[in-house]
Amino acid sequence: MIVLGIDPGYALMGWGAVQGEGSRMRLLGYGCIETHAGTPMQYRLRTLQMGVRDLIAMYHPDDVAFEELFFARNVTTALMVGAARGAAIIAAVESTDQLYEYTPMQIKQAVAGHGKADKRQVQEMVKLLLNMKELPRPDDAADAIACAITHLQSGRGKEQFRMK
Amino acid sequence: MIVLGIDPGYALMGWGAVQGEGSRMRLLGYGCIETHAGTPMQYRLRTLQMGVRDLIAMYHPDDVAFEELFFARNVTTALMVGAARGAAIIAAVESTDQLYEYTPMQIKQAVAGHGKADKRQVQEMVKLLLNMKELPRPDDAADAIACAITHLQSGRGKEQFRMK
Repeated sequence: MIVLGIDPGYALMGWGAVQGEGSRMRLLGYGCIETHAGTPMQYRLRTLQMGVRDLIAMYHPDDVAFEELFFARNVTTALMVGAARGAAIIAAVESTDQLYEYTPMQIKQAVAGHGKADKRQVQEMVKLLLNMKELPRPDDAADAIACAITHLQSGRGKEQFRMK
Repeated sequence: MIVLGIDPGYALMGWGAVQGEGSRMRLLGYGCIETHAGTPMQYRLRTLQMGVRDLIAMYHPDDVAFEELFFARNVTTALMVGAARGAAIIAAVESTDQLYEYTPMQIKQAVAGHGKADKRQVQEMVKLLLNMKELPRPDDAADAIACAITHLQSGRGKEQFRMK
């Protein structure tokens, strides 16, 4: 099964594609879709939408796993990040209804063994689990890979994490 | 010139299509795109996206005018409303790059003559300006019509309201 993990963001949207067969996992690719301050909002959103659409066309994921957004510095930021997340969801639902969501705490729990792990610990575990030569960077991409791993590990219990 | 006004919302997205020739204005249509609590988020966003796409196909607006979101009760609400707004913007930018935004205060100023007008006053003015037999309802649709009127009245000064 191939899972596309997404860490929704407005300037940087992290992604990671992970293939899982039984207990084996393989990293297919990861990175960030970038948009730039100063670019009008509609084009930034379109870049995010098209970027996710391209990833889905490239990796043909069975499931898409989003890191759930709970927190934003303030309402203005939340309006922007919410729009970015909306753009990614809209692109994903064009191809699949297998959309899932995990909270940051669930991801830390699944990947690093406890819900209060810091970013570095999560990255070390991602590196170890996927036999990477270096720590995954930037943070947004690492979080997206960790989200995909979380989904693969949730196995038959995954239905409870279906997007609502 | 035909303007599609949009008041972005998650459960109710108001819209109003207004044609303006010189100082004359004509209401072509108005209403709300509705999504229901309990429907998974991805389908609600898709409904909003498709709804705006259909409106653009139906009215062929020259410009699309959004009521700008400043305020939300809290971050969670802002994440949802932001996504709804993102869905509408994504649908609009497929057909036109003529996207504009007006704050609630600018809309009240333009339609009712002062920035602190209440909803009822705005609706009365919309009714008067467009020769409607009844007050436009619900509020979301009335706000969207008012937003389209605001854009038509901004005339040559409209460039300053282009979406950033």
